[in-house]
Amino acid sequence: MAAKYGSIHGPGELMGRPERQRASVLEAPGVVRIEERPVPVPGRREVLVRIASVGVCGSDVHYYRHGRIGDFVVRAPLVLGHEASGSVVELGEGATRHRVGERVCLEPGIPCGRCEQCRSGRYNLCPDVSFLATPPIDGAFTEYLVMHEDFVYAVPDQLGDDEAAMIEPLSVGVWACRKAGVAPGSRVLVTGAGPIGALAAQVARACGAARVTVSDVEPARLELALRLGADVVLDARSEAPASASVDVLIECSGVERALRSGIEALAPAGRAVLVGMGADEIRVPVAALQTRELWLTGTFRYANTYPAAIALATSGRVGFEGILGRHFALEEVESALSQGVSHDDGLKPIVVVGSAG
Amino acid sequence: MAAKYGSIHGPGELMGRPERQRASVLEAPGVVRIEERPVPVPGRREVLVRIASVGVCGSDVHYYRHGRIGDFVVRAPLVLGHEASGSVVELGEGATRHRVGERVCLEPGIPCGRCEQCRSGRYNLCPDVSFLATPPIDGAFTEYLVMHEDFVYAVPDQLGDDEAAMIEPLSVGVWACRKAGVAPGSRVLVTGAGPIGALAAQVARACGAARVTVSDVEPARLELALRLGADVVLDARSEAPASASVDVLIECSGVERALRSGIEALAPAGRAVLVGMGADEIRVPVAALQTRELWLTGTFRYANTYPAAIALATSGRVGFEGILGRHFALEEVESALSQGVSHDDGLKPIVVVGSAG
Amino acid sequence: MAAKYGSIHGPGELMGRPERQRASVLEAPGVVRIEERPVPVPGRREVLVRIASVGVCGSDVHYYRHGRIGDFVVRAPLVLGHEASGSVVELGEGATRHRVGERVCLEPGIPCGRCEQCRSGRYNLCPDVSFLATPPIDGAFTEYLVMHEDFVYAVPDQLGDDEAAMIEPLSVGVWACRKAGVAPGSRVLVTGAGPIGALAAQVARACGAARVTVSDVEPARLELALRLGADVVLDARSEAPASASVDVLIECSGVERALRSGIEALAPAGRAVLVGMGADEIRVPVAALQTRELWLTGTFRYANTYPAAIALATSGRVGFEGILGRHFALEEVESALSQGVSHDDGLKPIVVVGSAG
Amino acid sequence: MAAKYGSIHGPGELMGRPERQRASVLEAPGVVRIEERPVPVPGRREVLVRIASVGVCGSDVHYYRHGRIGDFVVRAPLVLGHEASGSVVELGEGATRHRVGERVCLEPGIPCGRCEQCRSGRYNLCPDVSFLATPPIDGAFTEYLVMHEDFVYAVPDQLGDDEAAMIEPLSVGVWACRKAGVAPGSRVLVTGAGPIGALAAQVARACGAARVTVSDVEPARLELALRLGADVVLDARSEAPASASVDVLIECSGVERALRSGIEALAPAGRAVLVGMGADEIRVPVAALQTRELWLTGTFRYANTYPAAIALATSGRVGFEGILGRHFALEEVESALSQGVSHDDGLKPIVVVGSAG
Repeated sequence: MAAKYGSIHGPGELMGRPERQRASVLEAPGVVRIEERPVPVPGRREVLVRIASVGVCGSDVHYYRHGRIGDFVVRAPLVLGHEASGSVVELGEGATRHRVGERVCLEPGIPCGRCEQCRSGRYNLCPDVSFLATPPIDGAFTEYLVMHEDFVYAVPDQLGDDEAAMIEPLSVGVWACRKAGVAPGSRVLVTGAGPIGALAAQVARACGAARVTVSDVEPARLELALRLGADVVLDARSEAPASASVDVLIECSGVERALRSGIEALAPAGRAVLVGMGADEIRVPVAALQTRELWLTGTFRYANTYPAAIALATSGRVGFEGILGRHFALEEVESALSQGVSHDDGLKPIVVVGSAG
Repeated sequence: MAAKYGSIHGPGELMGRPERQRASVLEAPGVVRIEERPVPVPGRREVLVRIASVGVCGSDVHYYRHGRIGDFVVRAPLVLGHEASGSVVELGEGATRHRVGERVCLEPGIPCGRCEQCRSGRYNLCPDVSFLATPPIDGAFTEYLVMHEDFVYAVPDQLGDDEAAMIEPLSVGVWACRKAGVAPGSRVLVTGAGPIGALAAQVARACGAARVTVSDVEPARLELALRLGADVVLDARSEAPASASVDVLIECSGVERALRSGIEALAPAGRAVLVGMGADEIRVPVAALQTRELWLTGTFRYANTYPAAIALATSGRVGFEGILGRHFALEEVESALSQGVSHDDGLKPIVVVGSAG
Repeated sequence: MAAKYGSIHGPGELMGRPERQRASVLEAPGVVRIEERPVPVPGRREVLVRIASVGVCGSDVHYYRHGRIGDFVVRAPLVLGHEASGSVVELGEGATRHRVGERVCLEPGIPCGRCEQCRSGRYNLCPDVSFLATPPIDGAFTEYLVMHEDFVYAVPDQLGDDEAAMIEPLSVGVWACRKAGVAPGSRVLVTGAGPIGALAAQVARACGAARVTVSDVEPARLELALRLGADVVLDARSEAPASASVDVLIECSGVERALRSGIEALAPAGRAVLVGMGADEIRVPVAALQTRELWLTGTFRYANTYPAAIALATSGRVGFEGILGRHFALEEVESALSQGVSHDDGLKPIVVVGSAG
Repeated sequence: MAAKYGSIHGPGELMGRPERQRASVLEAPGVVRIEERPVPVPGRREVLVRIASVGVCGSDVHYYRHGRIGDFVVRAPLVLGHEASGSVVELGEGATRHRVGERVCLEPGIPCGRCEQCRSGRYNLCPDVSFLATPPIDGAFTEYLVMHEDFVYAVPDQLGDDEAAMIEPLSVGVWACRKAGVAPGSRVLVTGAGPIGALAAQVARACGAARVTVSDVEPARLELALRLGADVVLDARSEAPASASVDVLIECSGVERALRSGIEALAPAGRAVLVGMGADEIRVPVAALQTRELWLTGTFRYANTYPAAIALATSGRVGFEGILGRHFALEEVESALSQGVSHDDGLKPIVVVGSAG
């Protein structure tokens, strides 16, 4: 490695610190190229992380195909990828929470820490957040990344690199369950059994849910959900949950019909949490919201979830088998993005940049 | 009074207890007649209340016109009216919470006290509730009514009979603010300035709201809202609240456009509470719910609100001037129902059956 | 069975209904005798339950020894026992939630359903509750018991009779975790590893706790805690938890030192829940409560916990091995009470009255 | 003014910006001197504030007398004062939330914005907070101060300089009521009617409390509490609140007896919030906490309270008459500190440094 990276010096001496790195860059919709870029220097309280594994998210695929998501437009070359694990190779000045060599996962959004949302504990809603792979912030399909030390988390050896990268999507599931108030005894319906749905269902179980029902239109996904611990699965093409049979709906499909039948399934005082992105507007049975005093909300990323997600994954209460998909090298990011989220050989493609071991 | 009511006896001796009473009965849609009926005898832990004032609610008007509200169908003659004050004239066996002669207001719904909803503190969602003036339970447009003592509340002398009757609609406002989490500093938008909106706005203020904005399409109602303490009023025909400018929306109009512009006005983590009944389904901007993590819910009646409502009204933090409308006698219930909710001489017609004084 | 019980008739025909039953009665402190008593007749919405297993609680032992607990004084012969399972043998008029033959467990407290506490969802604080084995209400060390159908819960076949009886103490653990806000990621300290502590620790785990630490002075109890899933155990004679290392303290020992070192262990905003009964007053480090904004509260029984407890036990997320102790016959209640809670052959003696199978 | 301060230039041109200022410095316990110091230059997103009024807090008096509060020791000369109003005279780079000339009040604690406490919305518990007048951070008994723009709040003209300085202690009352869950209908007991108690009582009222009872041992303070809107006052030397008569206790006296009788006064599920500092340890009736499931906690400063406090003060729902005491000049800080909190001519001495007008 030393030969490859040239001179090594300074605080990162033991681990090695190259001057140049390769990054996979989205140059235009559908156009991804490997570029050589300088390895950044960690600033005050920052750490330099050598990337190990990076999951491909639906948002990466969307940027790759369309060059934008809503108001977020890719106007300059952008590195995608925000579900990342790696290891710390250098500490910036004042960074004391990690040691060189530590295996870590990254929380990809750095909020301002000062605004009303941040100060209220809702830092996921910070209007000034810097979020990896969201224009104009480069993401993790690259060899080295600098992060503030407070958004880097140690991962124990029980978690492999791929699993450590999954702490990010797992956080989405943790957040959904938290907003929904899943607790011992809750009857939970998860609509949509893609990676997020499969993770949210497991988190619901780990929160003590009495019964977790998962619905989808793909039999393979339903089988996976069962293997991962769902109590009941429903083929949404032919089956609907019974009216007033669940306390919580976690909607992960983005499909209007799933939301509507899910709301119908909610018992009085039930909570519906929209996680999947779909249409901007949906006809909602508001009379049902009123007569049963249901709650409807949505999630935007997550806040304060990483320690919980790491604990659930480390203890095996949440597993990733069948969610982790095919491996791609950094040079194959475009293939990974083209494949998108599939279910032939696991749901989520993983870009393996290096190893944190 | 003794001459009118004939023989007097038993526990109610001091106050008088007739054998027969007059009741205003809805016999068919649009047909209301005075009937003579027996005065009921209070059972175990019940009290007999002589009715003083009864407010006319939109639901009364709806039953009068259409003979039904949703699944609730008037299949037999029904006494309407559920916003009632009066005085206790007789105590049933074991009733110890009130004394004969006490001026009171009535909480019109008696829940089962045993089901999951009741046991969770959500007794307003009890499927077995008996609610005055909801078929087949007779209401308060009558001279005497029997109620369980725990749903009868003493009112202090500062509150007149009409005001005591208003504790019921005021409870709707208290419940809306409680569900919305109105607290010191909240910026609140109330859409719809009928009686419920005018009361909810005042409760919001009494919860410490920093700014209460009220919108309506009727200038007279906006003027009333200002007199009752709104900080800002908006003519909904020409003005819309600024985007992301409020923390709470209390929707009292039942109008789709009000809900949609109200949701648009919610700041991140804002709460929208649907109080007004309108269309069963509404196109909701769910993407906004997601990106700003808004909460949307509705209210169905209220629970545990009477002590709070009585305290707010007694201390003058909520007033009824301009909300209390024209007086009608028991024989004039049909006129009161025909008038409906108006704004020429106050918003809400009051049926004056007797006096609690 | 028919021969034993004599004439059989009425709604309970299939299961059999005797006229007389045996009950174990506390006649004076330290004096327990078997008495023959009539089998009660279920009233409106009540069911007659044939008792299977009944756990011995510390409160039973306390009444046996001292004839009182605080203000509750045994003034007349009293049947003890309130952790009970059994089967439904007869339905009273209007009882529709169960079928004859159904295996069940009993929630031993029947609240009034009308008071302020009940209506707020805190029915465990109802001043008029009737609670089994609390003077003057007879308990479950008897062959047959009548209960309101809403406080009887079906148990699935995965749970044996003894385990079904444990739903009551498990409810104490569920309630403690709920009040403490245990959730994914919580670091939980349970002080005292008797039956309640051992159950609360498992519930904490089932709520998603990241790390459950259990402390006690008895090595055998700590070993049991480890077998039941505790992550860390501390011998309280020689070890103390690190300062500010946990989010939640569930104090099950009733020992002042445990509470004080537990509070010391709480991180900012931590919650301490007192479950174990001990001294009436304790010196509390209130300055710590202030500077770290800790919360301190206690539990009194439980509310709305049975469905959750049954689900956790049925799915195996909570187990009873090592908690369930030696079996005693109804004639041996006094031996069971004399033994008290031990750890030689399991922690909790079980009185086996019959079989629900 | 220009003559006094010499050359004026740059962004602060209109308002004037001197090079040197006077500060009142605590040099040793009991020793305060005026020093000349340079006027600081606002950094990125900071503003320079010219101080108008500064309230004297009990903590200022304590540092003055003892040179320490617990672990916080004055090791170098320290400027006291943290309840401050003023006006913005210069904007640092990137500071956009204020304009030069704006009248403001200061939130004196700047948290790190990154730690677990900050990210959870509990920034008052941030271990790395910089808090004015807490060693080694200089406070506001000075002419000019630099603050991050996000901790500076515009105040409307309805609030004078002294009142604007009171937003800080008012925040303590807002926070206490928020932690206690004061809401419409709450029955609140405030023990201790010094400045904080008098403010907390008014906030409780502004949250909709049904009845606010204030107790103290000083008749003059009780009279003030009545004038400021308390419903009931109790002379703690001879009267105690009735058992189980309130929902909330806000303890502002720091006196053990007040806490104990206050806990006795709490109804089931009541909340006690310790605001006043007193003994480190207190004998707490924990059995009462258990049988009534009371909650006990304390407050440490406040979080997210300024907008609410400003709104309550601006609208007159909280008033300061009788709380604002005698004026002292900057040169008279020592007299103000010597006087401490009194009740002869208002409760709280105010150091008037300049005018924000």
